[in-house]
Amino acid sequence: MTLDTQFNQVSVIKRANVYFDGKCVSHTVLFADGTRKTLGVIFPGTLNFGTEAPEVMDVQAGKCRIRIEGDGEWHTYSAGQSFAVPGNSRFDIHVIETLDYVCNYL
Amino acid sequence: MTLDTQFNQVSVIKRANVYFDGKCVSHTVLFADGTRKTLGVIFPGTLNFGTEAPEVMDVQAGKCRIRIEGDGEWHTYSAGQSFAVPGNSRFDIHVIETLDYVCNYL
Repeated sequence: MTLDTQFNQVSVIKRANVYFDGKCVSHTVLFADGTRKTLGVIFPGTLNFGTEAPEVMDVQAGKCRIRIEGDGEWHTYSAGQSFAVPGNSRFDIHVIETLDYVCNYL
Repeated sequence: MTLDTQFNQVSVIKRANVYFDGKCVSHTVLFADGTRKTLGVIFPGTLNFGTEAPEVMDVQAGKCRIRIEGDGEWHTYSAGQSFAVPGNSRFDIHVIETLDYVCNYL
């Protein structure tokens, strides 16, 4: 199950990304095909994120509610689920249980 | 400067390690030679860690004081400095400014 639990033959940036006063901590992974992902944690609370590239967030653990700007509705996601966020947009995230995620930049 | 800012040709575990109620967040990196490191952040506060393997902690950013069990003296470390901790031991870490580190397991 290594394919499921780890990324192989990648580069990883040594410095962490720390946002929102530590509410979000991630590390950046670079792939040979030029794409990148971040692996991270978001602690309980409500935050507003902006995107540049479109993103798909894979929830590995925890639980959150998401409201994408212009949508208006909250949707709930938990372990094993993913949600997509358009590029150049914003979304609210209400983390109910500490979120462990992989963010895929498309 | 890529050698300095990233690790290449590694595997990375997708799930984060979250300790001490989120005071410490890290991700594990696996090297082809069988060694591993963790990349992480420790937020301000005082924690007590135990080791199994001997460790060398490289401080990438921030500032901390360390007291290794049996030593009794506090030593201060900041960005660019490293400290070694024996295997099967414990140490107190007082993080003064959020610590961004690489932990090398020997």
